[in-house]
Amino acid sequence: MKSLHRYDLYGWSSFNKERNIDFNSIAWIRPNGNILIDPLSLSSHDYEHLNSLGGVRWIVITNSDHVRAAKEIAHVTGAQIAAPAAEQSHFPIECDRWLCDHEELVPGLRAIELHGSKTPGELALLLEQTTLITGDLVRAHKAGSLMILPNDKLSNREQAVASVQRLAQLSDIEAVLVGDGWSVFRDGGLALKELVATL
Amino acid sequence: MKSLHRYDLYGWSSFNKERNIDFNSIAWIRPNGNILIDPLSLSSHDYEHLNSLGGVRWIVITNSDHVRAAKEIAHVTGAQIAAPAAEQSHFPIECDRWLCDHEELVPGLRAIELHGSKTPGELALLLEQTTLITGDLVRAHKAGSLMILPNDKLSNREQAVASVQRLAQLSDIEAVLVGDGWSVFRDGGLALKELVATL
Repeated sequence: MKSLHRYDLYGWSSFNKERNIDFNSIAWIRPNGNILIDPLSLSSHDYEHLNSLGGVRWIVITNSDHVRAAKEIAHVTGAQIAAPAAEQSHFPIECDRWLCDHEELVPGLRAIELHGSKTPGELALLLEQTTLITGDLVRAHKAGSLMILPNDKLSNREQAVASVQRLAQLSDIEAVLVGDGWSVFRDGGLALKELVATL
Repeated sequence: MKSLHRYDLYGWSSFNKERNIDFNSIAWIRPNGNILIDPLSLSSHDYEHLNSLGGVRWIVITNSDHVRAAKEIAHVTGAQIAAPAAEQSHFPIECDRWLCDHEELVPGLRAIELHGSKTPGELALLLEQTTLITGDLVRAHKAGSLMILPNDKLSNREQAVASVQRLAQLSDIEAVLVGDGWSVFRDGGLALKELVATL
């Protein structure tokens, strides 16, 4: 896995040929149990790396299109899975916890429910006030700037824009880690405001 | 290939297990012939993508440790190869042009000779004043901030620091694209100044 902007955050990626972007996953290394977000399959090298850092306690899935390898990794590691409360009735895999707006999975990792995206209640995650993690709605196909899903993917554009505006109002965001495309590691809050200005 | 911060720049990467970082290559798409920098092997998908954008006219190698797949790609595409003038006498592959300080390979792509790195005259490349491309000396193992090679890799630390100071004095740098690790796509000039402050 690759070190991200903090030494307790790691990432791994897989290139997607259809969109010519990387899909990304995150590991937050914590004394009380590590957390993976939207995990893709791990190579044996990355799996060993993760194990050397303490394995996995929780897997968070931001939306039902980002299940990826969560079930397999949970099976192998014994991790529990958390997913969006608004998808509870139809989520494709079994989960242990359903997260809704403002809820903290563990201290320092707070769920933010987004609306109008392609699935109900897609989660963004705010990690210790300064790192925002997004699944699908906020993404980046061009390095250094953020975008949102195209209109034909949104269930309600007005709600989606309002959700992104809410993210842009968060203070102290340094980094925006996206599930799809290029994460922004400097001036994340500014990148969110620039995004809102384009909507 | 992935779109970088400009629509005429693309990149592709390969994860390096020894260092837990990505190695990166760049393609600059130009009406007068595309240029690859420190090219790694291309997947068939990326190779088709590159061909659809006009193939390759030039390959630039920043230093003899970054030859990577240059020879094979030149053989297949007919591209010419440019490399550091200071390595001309011992360069591991045949080249068509030797670049020294201030020299432009094509309009808008200027070579900057660095000193004190692990090879003589390692090249950085300044692309249209705003994008700096580095090979080995300036790199990023932690996302969002730059670093230099460790002391035991440098032939002369004082000269290496002076070379990085010179890069940090370039005005108008938006992005710093590194051969090894995390490129900086926002505030590249500031990231260079921050780097210098740590040396």
